[in-house]
Amino acid sequence: MIILVDQDGPLADFEKGFLETWRAQFPEERFIPLNQRKTFYVRDDYPEKLRDKVESIYFASGFYQNLPPVAGSVEALKILVELGYDVRICTSPLSRYENCVLEKYRWVEKHLGRDFIKRIVLSKDKTIVRGSFLIDDKPIIKGGETAEWEHILYDCPYNQEVKVKRRLTWANWREVFTF
Amino acid sequence: MIILVDQDGPLADFEKGFLETWRAQFPEERFIPLNQRKTFYVRDDYPEKLRDKVESIYFASGFYQNLPPVAGSVEALKILVELGYDVRICTSPLSRYENCVLEKYRWVEKHLGRDFIKRIVLSKDKTIVRGSFLIDDKPIIKGGETAEWEHILYDCPYNQEVKVKRRLTWANWREVFTF
Repeated sequence: MIILVDQDGPLADFEKGFLETWRAQFPEERFIPLNQRKTFYVRDDYPEKLRDKVESIYFASGFYQNLPPVAGSVEALKILVELGYDVRICTSPLSRYENCVLEKYRWVEKHLGRDFIKRIVLSKDKTIVRGSFLIDDKPIIKGGETAEWEHILYDCPYNQEVKVKRRLTWANWREVFTF
Repeated sequence: MIILVDQDGPLADFEKGFLETWRAQFPEERFIPLNQRKTFYVRDDYPEKLRDKVESIYFASGFYQNLPPVAGSVEALKILVELGYDVRICTSPLSRYENCVLEKYRWVEKHLGRDFIKRIVLSKDKTIVRGSFLIDDKPIIKGGETAEWEHILYDCPYNQEVKVKRRLTWANWREVFTF
């Protein structure tokens, strides 16, 4: 059984990385605490006039590869692999791919090991990737095809309104994965 | 209908790029002309004692992004898109991903345009990518799943022995694509 796991959100803590860098680089600007984030794209939660500053954080060299891992995520993935699930990391690069593409690979090597690299699938469109499940924090995932996988929502403050069959965190994943 | 197209071989001329760089960098060593290549992996056609030199060519920074396009490939892909096919570039990075991952993106942007970037699917395992066809020069393509696509062999000197239903070059693709 293939379990696809999105990288930014469920594994790499984009939100924490963004907020810490934001506060360090723009201490004079207001910030949105993690538990008050309302939209999937962080840029949509900040005023339009701050768009360039917001984007400068995650377009910067080093941002992706230095993201901290989400607590419990690395351990959970290793256990899923040990349990015999075919785990793949299914991640969509930014359109401004210049930094994030290579850094996503480096992040996986750093936190999950060199051998995990072969489990990476980089695709803007996740509907053309095969799997039984996709664990992803994005509320609605669209693409060119009707997805084969069931979307398991990775639970985040900004996706609380979304209705899905299963909602997962790395604290409750053993209860959610009762197939 | 999704048509997956491998990058190195059908699109980026790895063989030509390798041979030209090889002859320029190691003029004292023997070389294998393109039409005498017998194995899928170029390293297997050269003596074992030259392995490090061979690998130094394609592990080098700049090798992938500077590969010349295969004659007719870029035009054919653009026509396939115009004809309404859902063309995706399905490419497997080297295990030594450090240079090739980003450079594969740069190559696509350079030769097919920025908008084509969203059609890239980077995966070591192509069997988990959905599609009706995969145009690929690799003789046998294995992975974790039974592939959904039919393998159309991209015709090369080193895959002449392979038995497949369809064999394609960018000179004959209109005859092969008679669905």
